[in-house]
Amino acid sequence: MDAKHSLLQKLNDKTATIGVLGMGYVGLPLMLRYNAVGYPVIGFDIDQAKVDTVKSGKTYIEHFPSDKIGHAVEQGMDATTEFSRIKEVDAVILCVPTPLSKYREPDLSYVINTLEAALPYMRKGQIISLESTTYPGTTEEELLPRIEKQGLKVGEDIFLVYSPEREDPGNKDFTTATIPKIVGGHTSECLNVGKALYAQVIEKIVPVSSTKAAEMTKLLENIHRAVNIGLVNEMKIVADRMGIDIHEVIDAAATKPFGFTPYYPGPGLGGHCIPIDPFYLTWKAREYGLNTRFIELAGEVNTRMPDYVVEKTQGALNRHKKSLSGSNILILGVSYKKNVDDMRETPSAHIMERLMSMGANIDYSDPHVPVFPDMRKYKFDKSSVELTADNIASYDAVVLATDHDKFDYDLIYQHAKIIIDSRGKYRQISDKVVKA
Amino acid sequence: MDAKHSLLQKLNDKTATIGVLGMGYVGLPLMLRYNAVGYPVIGFDIDQAKVDTVKSGKTYIEHFPSDKIGHAVEQGMDATTEFSRIKEVDAVILCVPTPLSKYREPDLSYVINTLEAALPYMRKGQIISLESTTYPGTTEEELLPRIEKQGLKVGEDIFLVYSPEREDPGNKDFTTATIPKIVGGHTSECLNVGKALYAQVIEKIVPVSSTKAAEMTKLLENIHRAVNIGLVNEMKIVADRMGIDIHEVIDAAATKPFGFTPYYPGPGLGGHCIPIDPFYLTWKAREYGLNTRFIELAGEVNTRMPDYVVEKTQGALNRHKKSLSGSNILILGVSYKKNVDDMRETPSAHIMERLMSMGANIDYSDPHVPVFPDMRKYKFDKSSVELTADNIASYDAVVLATDHDKFDYDLIYQHAKIIIDSRGKYRQISDKVVKA
Repeated sequence: MDAKHSLLQKLNDKTATIGVLGMGYVGLPLMLRYNAVGYPVIGFDIDQAKVDTVKSGKTYIEHFPSDKIGHAVEQGMDATTEFSRIKEVDAVILCVPTPLSKYREPDLSYVINTLEAALPYMRKGQIISLESTTYPGTTEEELLPRIEKQGLKVGEDIFLVYSPEREDPGNKDFTTATIPKIVGGHTSECLNVGKALYAQVIEKIVPVSSTKAAEMTKLLENIHRAVNIGLVNEMKIVADRMGIDIHEVIDAAATKPFGFTPYYPGPGLGGHCIPIDPFYLTWKAREYGLNTRFIELAGEVNTRMPDYVVEKTQGALNRHKKSLSGSNILILGVSYKKNVDDMRETPSAHIMERLMSMGANIDYSDPHVPVFPDMRKYKFDKSSVELTADNIASYDAVVLATDHDKFDYDLIYQHAKIIIDSRGKYRQISDKVVKA
Repeated sequence: MDAKHSLLQKLNDKTATIGVLGMGYVGLPLMLRYNAVGYPVIGFDIDQAKVDTVKSGKTYIEHFPSDKIGHAVEQGMDATTEFSRIKEVDAVILCVPTPLSKYREPDLSYVINTLEAALPYMRKGQIISLESTTYPGTTEEELLPRIEKQGLKVGEDIFLVYSPEREDPGNKDFTTATIPKIVGGHTSECLNVGKALYAQVIEKIVPVSSTKAAEMTKLLENIHRAVNIGLVNEMKIVADRMGIDIHEVIDAAATKPFGFTPYYPGPGLGGHCIPIDPFYLTWKAREYGLNTRFIELAGEVNTRMPDYVVEKTQGALNRHKKSLSGSNILILGVSYKKNVDDMRETPSAHIMERLMSMGANIDYSDPHVPVFPDMRKYKFDKSSVELTADNIASYDAVVLATDHDKFDYDLIYQHAKIIIDSRGKYRQISDKVVKA
């Protein structure tokens, strides 16, 4: 039996060993899903702490609880830092980060370094799937030549696909299994093997004609979101100046049964996808002499939003004859979106840092983040303040940055002196609430 | 009984006479709807031809057929150019155009002139509703003072609301009756009367807190669309240069069950709403020292699209060693969107004019537009060419501008020499099809 048929058979009867490289927000749920349907799974990560946590049946991401991981480990799910074990797997799925450099250029180092660590152990009859978001052409330009240099013929010996992750942390309606999966193959044989790789674990596979069409698809999804959020953020500023509540307007517009989809303004973008991914296209487009002007405008508007919240806070205190410097301010919510503990690129960190630099005394409260973790750009030595009536009343202002369901909004309203609301949570007209 | 209660009673028992001012794409369906539920209706227009057409039971808009209008006239629906008859009506609904001046500033002359023609005949116990799309503040700044100058106290003698039209010509899923209606009142009494005005003819009324919130709602809907179409038009150009079919990518992205809504690129914007309305906000925002950058960028990108189609046409002919000058080109579809005869702001006219100015011989074919009507900017003395195999084969290129369902796409594909496809109708890879 040739490489392709033997691999297809193993994928179809779930005896193929699945290697997931990168055990973060994307890799971990994928490992759990392959384990749940009965595949042997090995997770690979360079972070020994992550590997040890998983192997001991514990967790490092709130919405994947320990008992679920413990159960998967009992069922045989393995994790390792030893890349030599790549030779044991039939599928190599890359789920590593693709951040931006500080000059806002694609940083493919995690992808390339992980691939190069795996390559010495790769062999005929494997499939490699890249899930990391990246610019169109990455699979063909960066992965393909490195794999073929190993003497492996892509499409015959080994199979190469791009299949973007679509994880949405905290989304209760959709899981890894129920979010349709885009797959683009380098050749039609690659695509066929790629479809088999995911067919048993994901309900709907969406094949596209090339790896670069698949790469562009993921970018378009995130660009669409970044631009729509940028647009409502700009509209928020305009409406605010005209004495109109943008949240009322968005809700009214959303009653139109066609042609309108509501997006909501906020204190700035967070998470790994929306603030970062669009600039992968911006960078690649330059190679073709093209500008991606909507992306750049969205980036500009969205990046300014934390400062807008800071200005609104300063203005609100000023109307109470207080300076920002010396005021005590409580930030409500520090994760980048509601009901999760995900701190990646959170605008709350920028707001806190900026308020502190202007002399304010800052505390925060977040039921999902008991201790503020060290971040790449920010280090705060702070723990979450309990939301009691007395605590709330002790601050000159509270800034609602992330609208967790766990907050007691009535309690906050009753006891806060001023509320700077960046989420449209308080709709009533009130001297106490400043919309930001 | 006071003015309000007597008016409310007449609205509730459908004895109120409804005056609709402006019998176009918005006013005509509204007249038909009020007539259908049993109200006496008088349509007002300065265009004697429109009034005569309606009174003789004929039509001037394809999707409101003559028999429907004839039936309504039999049921008592009336039409007139005599504004003195405003005194007969209980409701004055303004459905007049709000175009842009050639300097892209709001042209409220139709609104103001119509209002001023009606005002001498207005009286206690009437409601006036503005449905024309306009900038936030129009109702309060332009209508209110003119009405009060007549000695009528708004909120007591007479009632003033803003309730934006949401007509979508050709939409088979929603009608005037089933599209929820936003209503904002100048006072809470105005809002109550406004709700009664529409409650019997429209299934769902959505009250908002002010006339300017209602004005902003309609603008946000159209801005959202203009920006999203601008974004995919920009993405189309980028994808095209990277060798990616944007329509494949949009369809793939649309399989994401959350966070993405598909919008499609095209040859440029058309219709009365999307190309025009957003600039009403741009103009008003300047009063507050603010720029609406997404709107301006969308305007810039979308306005350029007809030229992009022209460039693609020229490039395609060039690859066949033909110059645009002297080539015979057939434009398929001249209305601004599919399956309607609506020519307002159609990009096809710009494409035709530009191709002709570069020396091409232009014909068009459109099953909905047998004769090219005279437009404000363009006058073509042309009739629709029949789409036969021989006719199609006789042109050097065909440009698919509007993707009517009535076109025989297989026939076009078989016989055309070159197809410039601005609608993503032809997906197969083919030398004959150029995506534009």
